Order: sequence, then structure tokens, then C-alpha cells
Amino acid sequence: MLERFKVKPEDRVMIDHESLEATVAALFEKMGVPADQAAEGADVLTTTDLRAVETHGVSNMMRAYIQMYAGGRMNPNPNVRTVRETPGTAVLDADGGLGIIVGRGAMNIAVAKARNVGTGVVTMSNSGHLGAVGHFAMIAAQNDMIGVCMTAGGASVLPTFGAEGRLGANPISYAAPARNQPPVLFDVATSAVAMNKVGLARRVGSDLLPGWVADLEGNPIMEEVAPEEAGNFFGLPFGGTREGGSHKGYGFSMMVEIFSGLLSDSVPSMLDDTPFQSGFKHYFAAYDIAAFTDLDVFKDKMDRVLEMLKDTKPAPGQDRVLYPGLSEAEEEADRRANGIPLHSEVVEWFDDVCGEFSVSPLKRK
Amino acid sequence: MLERFKVKPEDRVMIDHESLEATVAALFEKMGVPADQAAEGADVLTTTDLRAVETHGVSNMMRAYIQMYAGGRMNPNPNVRTVRETPGTAVLDADGGLGIIVGRGAMNIAVAKARNVGTGVVTMSNSGHLGAVGHFAMIAAQNDMIGVCMTAGGASVLPTFGAEGRLGANPISYAAPARNQPPVLFDVATSAVAMNKVGLARRVGSDLLPGWVADLEGNPIMEEVAPEEAGNFFGLPFGGTREGGSHKGYGFSMMVEIFSGLLSDSVPSMLDDTPFQSGFKHYFAAYDIAAFTDLDVFKDKMDRVLEMLKDTKPAPGQDRVLYPGLSEAEEEADRRANGIPLHSEVVEWFDDVCGEFSVSPLKRK
Repeated sequence: MLERFKVKPEDRVMIDHESLEATVAALFEKMGVPADQAAEGADVLTTTDLRAVETHGVSNMMRAYIQMYAGGRMNPNPNVRTVRETPGTAVLDADGGLGIIVGRGAMNIAVAKARNVGTGVVTMSNSGHLGAVGHFAMIAAQNDMIGVCMTAGGASVLPTFGAEGRLGANPISYAAPARNQPPVLFDVATSAVAMNKVGLARRVGSDLLPGWVADLEGNPIMEEVAPEEAGNFFGLPFGGTREGGSHKGYGFSMMVEIFSGLLSDSVPSMLDDTPFQSGFKHYFAAYDIAAFTDLDVFKDKMDRVLEMLKDTKPAPGQDRVLYPGLSEAEEEADRRANGIPLHSEVVEWFDDVCGEFSVSPLKRK
Repeated sequence: MLERFKVKPEDRVMIDHESLEATVAALFEKMGVPADQAAEGADVLTTTDLRAVETHGVSNMMRAYIQMYAGGRMNPNPNVRTVRETPGTAVLDADGGLGIIVGRGAMNIAVAKARNVGTGVVTMSNSGHLGAVGHFAMIAAQNDMIGVCMTAGGASVLPTFGAEGRLGANPISYAAPARNQPPVLFDVATSAVAMNKVGLARRVGSDLLPGWVADLEGNPIMEEVAPEEAGNFFGLPFGGTREGGSHKGYGFSMMVEIFSGLLSDSVPSMLDDTPFQSGFKHYFAAYDIAAFTDLDVFKDKMDRVLEMLKDTKPAPGQDRVLYPGLSEAEEEADRRANGIPLHSEVVEWFDDVCGEFSVSPLKRK
């Protein structure tokens, strides 16, 4: 994440990750989620914050999830159903369950199918928000497979040249294991910016970058702008404008719509009469590495690739070269030891809601 | 394609596409390629030019292919071998065959496997250039499947923050059928620009755009620059700089390296001692739509999505909204009727080489 979107030192409260996980699980249980599923949701959110993917951790998401359960818009105890199945594929109906809680089961099915026929692909409809999709790709990597996960939902992002929202932030992720190096973990919005990064920008007092959003006429805003000044806006595909390559962002976003929305028992959000009527549509894929090559050979080659990338001479003014997943692994090690830096405003919200639901409050580190 | 990269009207010679295909096939045969494989290669190149993907049609590629065959660097009559196989996957060794010629066989295997187990994934190593990867994704779409194709090779593109080339242009493509609308066809480099667009820019006299390339120190060149003034340079991942989102281009490029290079019987080019020692590594995937949903329902939904995208109100100053594959289909209809506009310099090269090899010359339309 760019430095400017991190919580400023003076606003930081360091929270013990085990305490965060316990509190989140307890809050889910108060929403009627069974204990094992509440623990799963808490694990996903806490791991996301440990990896410093703050857009999709507790700060932006927990209050939204609580509101959805409290408002009856999410099923706390879903019965996930298989709609269609082949040796290598399955289509699931999530029965209105929150994505972060039902996601692992879907990826587990993909992994089991990959074990049998080389790859497994699972689509899922009628679900809530999936959080950081890379989390589910990582489940495959933890099983010595390559994982891919995407999710589609919403229509707040413009197609290139367009003035009406048609697409969601539609993120794409993949993960792959190595031997001694931290695994590869890539997880990005196909919009210029995850829409909830706007919430993050507002909280940390940072501006939106050029090419991130368009005004309501469809004009891309090509200078830095404070979130509150941007008013209502549309998202732009990554690239921002056609000359900046936004046809690439748009095309990747359509890929997510097709694989998640059109291959599941659902429709893309742009065909919904009301936004999110069809919920979020997810895609999970696992590739069994051993079906393609010797697993040890793969892991050794992956280490050599990742070492070579890290050892790449930096360009002038840069400290070092990263690879996708490296900073997440470093952040996780640091945050496990030293706590997760939450914004004081988020900690206050937790204190309030824990009081309201009689749940033990967060422990400062 | 941006207007500025099209062949200027005064330089255009309109060539009949059937004549082009016959001439290209005859030239491949002169290189020792068997007639059926020569016809396949000619079909791929001509279809690419019909779709107006001029970076990967005859203008840039044919002389390179001829040079490779003539120099003994490509096997004109390869014996493609299966290295490893499961019900849903295969790993192939192309025996030094040119990608555009051996690609169809690989995608056909993916399609057959998808028919059996829902999806099929095939990787291929020890091969030459694959041309426009979207061509192979389209083979799946023509079989009522969704196709994905990617290819990895070369190390002329910098990782974000880096000053040493590590990655190739590493394109990603997918294609999906509709009912009455032209199919979706998406095919983009994960570098800011396909490296052979630089040759195209030089030919048509256009400048390179900001964020496309870096100097040899690794500094991104952020103004427009004439190709001849750029001197030697590295490619940049799409996004150009980290603030422009180049970590996304870099991560997608790594995805291609992993799926094509690490899952095939090969290594990523960055581990080669000499560039291209390992050749190009390809990835082909087919998803049988009927494994996921009713095929007719899928095609109807796809039509509704594509109509909605085309009917999107344009932003100020824009004519209309496209979707990936729409302009390619429109160009193909036009070029079949009116000929393919080649640059006069390219036609002169064809005239020379046809004379040299006693092949009938191109017919002007």
C-alpha cells in the first residue's frame, strides 16, 4: 500500500491480533452466526489485517457486516447448496451467507476436485461480500496448489468511454507456494481503486489520485482531489483513461463478471433492477501443481524466481524491488509481534459496539 | 487500437485477405513447414490482421518468422509430445515448433478435456512465438466454451521499482461466446505496451506514450517520445509507475510467468542464461459452459450484457462505448469486404520475398 494511505502514527492504536480475532468472533456470534462459522469469519478478517490489507480488514468491513446481519440482509446460518457438478467443477448457491464465512468451503471443494482431475473450479452465487479475495487463493497455496479467486458485484464503475456505471470493483487474486520464500499473493481491484479505499482515504486524510474516479457526467478526474470534494462519483477501470490503458482494466473486470457472474447461478449486477439484488458472485479455482510438474522442482524454481526479483537492482530513488505477497508476509510477521495498528476512530467504534453487545473489548498491545 | 497507431491513409495498400493467406502459407511451405501446418499458420496470421491486431499480424511477425526458420532457430516439422497428463490437464513439449502453428492442437486438447471433466488446462514449453494469444482463446469460444490463453517469454520488462529486465510482455487473453452479439475477445499485454508496438509506432511515425518505457537506468519516461529518440529502453508493466498502478501490471505478468513458465516443463526467462533460451511458454484453458449452467441461458444473458454495454451513455467527447472484441468483429467484417490495409513498406517486403522464393505475390484489392 502507498505510504499516504497508512494510518498516521498519531492516530494509531496497536491492537493484539488474538484479541481482535476473539472480539470479532464474539460479535459474529451475537449476530446469530454459529460458533465455528463465526470463528472462520474472524480468522479471515484478522488475517487480512495482519497482512495489512486495510481496505478489507475490520476497519472498513466489520461495521458493514454487523449492519447487514442486524438489518436481516445476510443469512447468519446458511445452508450452502450444490446446484450443478462435474468431476472438475461445481456451482454453489450460498443461501445468502456472507462470503468471508462460506468462501473456505468453496475453495476446499476446488482443492479436492483438483486433487482428482488436475484442476477444480467452483462458482458461487447468492452470497455476501467476500473480503480480500487473495485470502481464498492462499488456501489453495497452503495445499501445495495454485489458487485463483475473483468476485463480482455492484455497478459503480464505468466502462471505458462510458458515463453510466456497469461494473463492480471486481477484484482478481492468485497465490502460489514457494519453498523458503514467502508465497506469491496477488490481489487487486480491476477498478483503478477498490471503492472502499475511498473510505480509507477519508479516514487517514489523504487525497484520491488522478484517474481513480470520474464525475457523474463520466469525466475522469485527472488531478488529486480530497474524498469529500469528489462528491458523488463513479469508479474508473484501472488505467483511468483509454490512453492510460483503461481498456485493460475494463476487460479484466468483464473477465470477473463472466467467470463469477455468468458461470454461476446468477446474473451480472448490471442486469439487476436494483444494485446488489443478485448479491456477490464468486469464483474459486485450484491447480494441483503435481498434475503439471514435480512439486519439489516447482518450489525450488519459485524460490529462484522470487530471490531474483528481490535482488533486482532498484531504479533511481527506489529502495528495493518487491514481489506480490512479500510485503504482506513481512507485515504479518511484524503485526503478529507488535500488534495491528487500527485508527483510533475504529477502536472507538469497537469499544461502543462491544459495550452494546456485552462482548469483551479489544486489548491494546 | 488508438487512432495514432493505424497505418496512415497515404501509406495504405489494400490487400485481399485470401491472397494474403495463400501467400503466407506458400512462404511457410518454402521454409519446410508441411502443407497443413503452413495453412494453419497462415490462417492465424490472416485472422489476426482481419481483426486489426496489427502488432501481431504479418507486418511485424512474418519477416521474423521467416528469419527464424531460415536461421534454423525454429523446427518446421515438430513432433509435439505429451510430458504429463491427468483427466483435466496436460503438459506438452512443442519440439521447437512455432506457437502460431502448434497452438490450435494444444487448445483442442483443453477443449476435449473440458468436455469430459468441466475444464481443461494445457501448458506447453519449447515453442516459438504464439502471435495474438486471443486467437487461441477464440477457438474455445467457437466450441461453446470460455477460453483463456497466455504466453510468457523474454525479460525486457522491468518489475515495479526495478532497473533490470525480468519479465516478458506476457499477454493474457480470454474469449466467450454470445448468441447474436459478436463474441467477447480480450487480449492485452501485461506490459504497458506490446514490445512490437514500438516497431509499429516507428513504421507509422507515431510517438510512444508516457509510462510505456523506461531508460536503461530504470527511470520511467513520463513524456511522449519518438521511438528513435527512446534509444535502448526497458518496457514497463502496465500502469507505468507505482502511483499509476504498475504493481497490477507486474502482478498479472507474474501470473503469466507462473501459469505458463512454472507449470510447464520449462523455466521463466528470467532464469535463462541467455534470453529466450527456453523459448516461449504457453497456457491454454477451456471452460465448458454447459458444466456450469445451461448454454442457452448463458448466451442469452451474454447478449443482454453486451447490448447493455454498447448502449451505455458515452462520456462527454466520446462517440460510443465498446466491449472487448466488438471493434475486432467490426473490423473483420470490413476487411473481409474491402481488404486489409498494409503499410506500403510491408507490401514491398512481401514483393521482394515472394520474388526470392518464387511465390505468387499479394493481390491488391
